[in-house]
Amino acid sequence: MGTGIDVVALGGNAIIPAGGKGTIEEQRAITTETMSQVADLIISGRKVIVTHGNGPIVGNILERNDAARSKIPPMPLDICGADSQGGIGYMIQQILRNELVKRKINKQVVSIISQVVVDGGDDAFENPTKPIGPYYSREEADEMTSSKNWIMKEDPEGKGFRRVVPSPTPIEIVESSTIKSLLESGTIVIAVGGGGIPVVLRDGQLHGVEAVIDKDRASSVLALGINAERLIILTNVEEVSRNWGSSEQVAIRDIHLSEIRSLYEAYEFPAGSMGPKIRSAIDFVAGGGRKAIVSHASGLLDACAGNVGTHITPDE
Amino acid sequence: MGTGIDVVALGGNAIIPAGGKGTIEEQRAITTETMSQVADLIISGRKVIVTHGNGPIVGNILERNDAARSKIPPMPLDICGADSQGGIGYMIQQILRNELVKRKINKQVVSIISQVVVDGGDDAFENPTKPIGPYYSREEADEMTSSKNWIMKEDPEGKGFRRVVPSPTPIEIVESSTIKSLLESGTIVIAVGGGGIPVVLRDGQLHGVEAVIDKDRASSVLALGINAERLIILTNVEEVSRNWGSSEQVAIRDIHLSEIRSLYEAYEFPAGSMGPKIRSAIDFVAGGGRKAIVSHASGLLDACAGNVGTHITPDE
Repeated sequence: MGTGIDVVALGGNAIIPAGGKGTIEEQRAITTETMSQVADLIISGRKVIVTHGNGPIVGNILERNDAARSKIPPMPLDICGADSQGGIGYMIQQILRNELVKRKINKQVVSIISQVVVDGGDDAFENPTKPIGPYYSREEADEMTSSKNWIMKEDPEGKGFRRVVPSPTPIEIVESSTIKSLLESGTIVIAVGGGGIPVVLRDGQLHGVEAVIDKDRASSVLALGINAERLIILTNVEEVSRNWGSSEQVAIRDIHLSEIRSLYEAYEFPAGSMGPKIRSAIDFVAGGGRKAIVSHASGLLDACAGNVGTHITPDE
Repeated sequence: MGTGIDVVALGGNAIIPAGGKGTIEEQRAITTETMSQVADLIISGRKVIVTHGNGPIVGNILERNDAARSKIPPMPLDICGADSQGGIGYMIQQILRNELVKRKINKQVVSIISQVVVDGGDDAFENPTKPIGPYYSREEADEMTSSKNWIMKEDPEGKGFRRVVPSPTPIEIVESSTIKSLLESGTIVIAVGGGGIPVVLRDGQLHGVEAVIDKDRASSVLALGINAERLIILTNVEEVSRNWGSSEQVAIRDIHLSEIRSLYEAYEFPAGSMGPKIRSAIDFVAGGGRKAIVSHASGLLDACAGNVGTHITPDE
């Protein structure tokens, strides 16, 4: 008997659509489309955890912190990430609960503010790569470096300077055992929003760090920690492709672990987009998961039925 | 046998101290002082829920939204409140978990993003009284009224115009049954931050509304919903007083329900400060709670031991 648990990982861009203005009405509309499908997945008998990105939203929170910085002390990145977990989690839990009620299902849906342990010695801390927050002029960037020790990088398209932060590897979800027991009791859980808040352990004490965690990597760690059967990563393409963007582009539908691992190790998938998703899928299946799926947010049910999406399974 | 459950309600001013700058370092320092005592309360065998205000913090979030409004669409009040639950909840759960670990206790501490049902027909919606967010000039205030239907009131001290919103009576905590089952399994829960996010039910669907809920009133509803034994309201005075501010001011130490209810009905406690705390305490004891305590945040353990604070108990 399987656990019946699915982790559904929602891209930040499935909350604020590309080219959108970022209003709450837009966010609600697109979230409702996805949650309608998640509700149907729950009706089919699955125990579901929803995880989500926070890319555009925490960016807005950082911009607002910056816009008011002469009047109100800006909050550090861990607090801004936690804020985004609260706001996005609230929106998702309310909409999903409403979709379930429309289907005559009465279940609790709760958001768990999630911390994720990373290694303070992770190489990522020596090489921050992830741009976050607003663009600054050269003088402002210099001032941020001297006053806050921020590492600033110039945007290749000339938009200005942005802060870059490390993206360390997630090791463990601090709230994992609570999430697991909630799921087992039939509660729907929203967790590791934005990849979770990165924390390091020093002498047994947790400390937030100025970094961001890839939400698919964190979702994979969570999925293994709670014995999920499937990790379903929703993004903006129907399938993962080989030779992406070339004349020989081919969609990948069903693939075994060792084969996709070879493709991954041959740098077939770009680091800034599909790479971390494939890596997360590989880690999940290699760690004992039954199946990882990568597909478009609009096709969750079709993907679960096997009609669309890239499906990664253990070697036979 | 009692349930052993205590609801500890923390004032927003116990997170950002009066006269403080609002930096995260200040917030962490003052929260650590309180959580150190909460950890000792847990060690003594109590099952604890922490609730908290968000007054100064959601005010800052609203100010930041306003400061960036020409660039980024401001979020509505429900999202801002949920953001504050995420950020404050994260800080409290991390600090409390660390204090427990220092005491060799290994327990999960989680924040639950909380929605609170209010009645759309509540009189409060006809008479918004609660000022929130930044001060505006008269022209800006007029513009907010015409563009957003905000009700603006002039500050009596001439600081400008502020938005006022309704503060309806909390009816039910949406996530109450999850909170209860977590507590029963030994998890420490942080909930109804900022009084919870006010929602109304229409045709079974939850909708966020532009209002705020008093956090002590929400804590009282939560405490009754989960069969708590004690509601402990922490504020900035050691005891509630009669004839407050006059030469006949007398601290109230032990008082029965019917007596404090008479004082409450005689308008002994100001609506803007002690009134809602006393009302919350009365509702809790009248609803079946064993004891409500109002005391200073620095004296939680002393108050629990009966040495300080105002202690309200059922009539004998």
